[in-house]
Amino acid sequence: MQLSITGANYIGQKNSQSGSTTFKTFSCRSQKENDAVFHSISEDELEEVLQKAADCSQAYALSSIERRRQFLHEIIHLLEEHRTTLVHQFCEESSLLVDRADVELTRTQKQIKTYIDVISRENWEVVSNEVVNGVSFEKKHFPLGAVVVFGASNFPFAYSTIGGDVASALAAGNPVIYKANPFHAGVSEMVTQIILKAAKRAFLPDGVFSLVQGGDYWIGEKLLKDERVKAVGFTGSVRGGVALLNYAKERTIPIPVFCEMGSLNPTFIFKDALDSRMDEMVEKLAFAIKNDAGQFCTKPGLIFVEGEKAKTFIAKVQAEFETAAAIPMLHPSIYEAYMRLSATFEKYTIIQNPQEALKYSAKPTLAVLSFEEFLASKEAKEEVFGPFSVIVTCSDTNEMKQGASIIGGHLTASFWTEETLSEEWLYWAGKSVGRIIRNGVPTGVEVIDSMHHGGNFPATSDSRFTAVGKDAIYRFLQPVTLQGF
Amino acid sequence: MQLSITGANYIGQKNSQSGSTTFKTFSCRSQKENDAVFHSISEDELEEVLQKAADCSQAYALSSIERRRQFLHEIIHLLEEHRTTLVHQFCEESSLLVDRADVELTRTQKQIKTYIDVISRENWEVVSNEVVNGVSFEKKHFPLGAVVVFGASNFPFAYSTIGGDVASALAAGNPVIYKANPFHAGVSEMVTQIILKAAKRAFLPDGVFSLVQGGDYWIGEKLLKDERVKAVGFTGSVRGGVALLNYAKERTIPIPVFCEMGSLNPTFIFKDALDSRMDEMVEKLAFAIKNDAGQFCTKPGLIFVEGEKAKTFIAKVQAEFETAAAIPMLHPSIYEAYMRLSATFEKYTIIQNPQEALKYSAKPTLAVLSFEEFLASKEAKEEVFGPFSVIVTCSDTNEMKQGASIIGGHLTASFWTEETLSEEWLYWAGKSVGRIIRNGVPTGVEVIDSMHHGGNFPATSDSRFTAVGKDAIYRFLQPVTLQGF
Repeated sequence: MQLSITGANYIGQKNSQSGSTTFKTFSCRSQKENDAVFHSISEDELEEVLQKAADCSQAYALSSIERRRQFLHEIIHLLEEHRTTLVHQFCEESSLLVDRADVELTRTQKQIKTYIDVISRENWEVVSNEVVNGVSFEKKHFPLGAVVVFGASNFPFAYSTIGGDVASALAAGNPVIYKANPFHAGVSEMVTQIILKAAKRAFLPDGVFSLVQGGDYWIGEKLLKDERVKAVGFTGSVRGGVALLNYAKERTIPIPVFCEMGSLNPTFIFKDALDSRMDEMVEKLAFAIKNDAGQFCTKPGLIFVEGEKAKTFIAKVQAEFETAAAIPMLHPSIYEAYMRLSATFEKYTIIQNPQEALKYSAKPTLAVLSFEEFLASKEAKEEVFGPFSVIVTCSDTNEMKQGASIIGGHLTASFWTEETLSEEWLYWAGKSVGRIIRNGVPTGVEVIDSMHHGGNFPATSDSRFTAVGKDAIYRFLQPVTLQGF
Repeated sequence: MQLSITGANYIGQKNSQSGSTTFKTFSCRSQKENDAVFHSISEDELEEVLQKAADCSQAYALSSIERRRQFLHEIIHLLEEHRTTLVHQFCEESSLLVDRADVELTRTQKQIKTYIDVISRENWEVVSNEVVNGVSFEKKHFPLGAVVVFGASNFPFAYSTIGGDVASALAAGNPVIYKANPFHAGVSEMVTQIILKAAKRAFLPDGVFSLVQGGDYWIGEKLLKDERVKAVGFTGSVRGGVALLNYAKERTIPIPVFCEMGSLNPTFIFKDALDSRMDEMVEKLAFAIKNDAGQFCTKPGLIFVEGEKAKTFIAKVQAEFETAAAIPMLHPSIYEAYMRLSATFEKYTIIQNPQEALKYSAKPTLAVLSFEEFLASKEAKEEVFGPFSVIVTCSDTNEMKQGASIIGGHLTASFWTEETLSEEWLYWAGKSVGRIIRNGVPTGVEVIDSMHHGGNFPATSDSRFTAVGKDAIYRFLQPVTLQGF
């Protein structure tokens, strides 16, 4: 099999490009559009996608676990077989570097393996069994039906075509309608070809996976409101996620819509850590903010630092940022948003490389605010996607606590200190974030069972669920009790 | 301690009745109002309730498991101590019989014990633990914060003041604001006194439980929209549940709102069962429809019966219903709704006792529809709360399948047959209901771990959760990963 870019949508196994709207992807690194032309899906095509997913739901739900395992194993195998091609296309469309693409592909394979492992456990669907007065009760999981997944801009492999949302939904027995992120439409099509090939090899019904191309709002609206859609996974901005959640509110029959959205990933540096871990903190935080142009949902975007030595911390971080190279961003629209939002901090102390940067490349930037400035600032309480972070100087822990109390929900909170974290801090974090980190940075999300990649709104739309790790599959399953069977 | 009815709201431990709106409860059995006067909560009082719950959230979340266990054990103990008083008041306000009240109280104690058992497991909050590259990851559950529970009309103990929703929310470490069902305001107040006494004895913070009295819509609206409320549990009608879900849609920050609403509990009688189990079916189904005036969420309200022998089945059921006594309902408004809805079936064959019934007492009633009549009937696809069921005669299994495909989600589906249920039937049931029953009736919900008391909309608002059994606690908890602790 050769992977190719045709620019089409995939209505199950059928390649289709009847729509009149076209678009191209862009390389911020080479500062030009890529060649391939993609066709946004038409209304008729999307209708066909929805019906095909609904039509194959029963056959796929009833397919043997062995077939589903074979399907997912085959995907891992084909991703490996086409690694070079995929990595190349990934880089063309994201401006990320080869090493990152390579690591992300391996991570993606590991994620798929996680869900293979879940469904390979004996009686994996069974939650529990009991016999009462001679009557048996067995509680087991059933798939929900067609799941729509919206791919993320910043993880063209791991949160996209065969990312965690899609892999978990497929493993659970749900057909998937995948709405590609238009920034990396080409690599999405290539991975789609792999998924469809694997589905054929596993003799799965047509419709188990469809690819929807395009960036128009009506597509999201149609998908969220359609009765044939039984669940939704989304990774992206707060604005995008809230728009989908609002469409879903118009449904008569509610469905689970899991949106992973914005996060500041607040970091609290206690004064004792400025003595014990200064250089480690500076190095790790600077890397976490700058790496891959800070285009991570877990980038530390808000740092509270306590006491007099904050000045030394800032001076050391400053040295890292004033010499840092600008980094090409994922897409011109992300670059423009970055420039627009970071410009709103002009009134504060800004630390960045004074040299002019290339267009579409972002300068790693820090804004340093006093606690009073932070209290009064609206923009410092919202995410700036990119290599940007706000440092808030606090006179004491009470100011840090006050800061924490007004910033809402996030994916993570990090604490740098040698002391035991107080119950009060733990309580705040436990009701505000999905992961609490001690003496570390939030980036580098481990794909393990004990990872909770969630958090309170606006980090996600339902803090009880995770997008990473085996438990992510339970977003797309419902328990049912069989009594007397 | 003496239990008493003061007619007040309880703002934590504080008894308050400053509102000017009052109401009384009613006994359909004696056909008159009960004496006690209850005060609907005022806006100022509700504001105080909300603030008190928010204010004590941290202290309660951080209270030791030992204290919470003591609290819940004490409640079980006090319920027992006051059993006679409680059962008496239960009967006065519900017109249900002493035996039923007694059984329900024991069931309620068992439910509380379920959640004591959950939090008594060693490290019960911990989901999993891993160490990766020397860094520890521990995923554990944290409470959500103040939970609002709306009590059900039909279970004054088991789905009310210290029912499954409240007991699971409290065990999880969340303060509870309990909005009593106005039909049994008195027994709600008595159970509140028990809860508050137990909270004092366990030295828990004031505000861990509050009682809200009243039936005005603004109360639900205020509770659902208030930012201090972090989750909601409701058991009641589709209309009531959908109203709450709609209020919740106006929130900026979404919260889990678990509503258990209407269900027809479709029953499918295959022709082979008419040979093998005729008398058993007639007896069990007639009992399930008539018992306690059919005022159960799991009452079988729609029965499909296949083949020629359906006539015999109907004749035998007819004999049971034509001589059945009318039964007092929970409340005049429930009686009126029953009379209004059952009257819409006048154009079909109706089976009921021809004798005149007392006011507020419902005659057990069957409506017999041909399959064609069923297809054309809107009313036969909606729940009639009370001792009422629709029998649909089908010529074959295909008609039953077609019937199943157009009736939406329910709490349960029951199948009477000696044959193995086909994958197709199982698939339909697995995406439509929370419990699939073989050769049995859906009433008599066992309080066990393997019970899934949920189901697809409109049975509940989120089919992934249950209102019964230990897993109900996970509606009110969120996992958080502690990294590097």
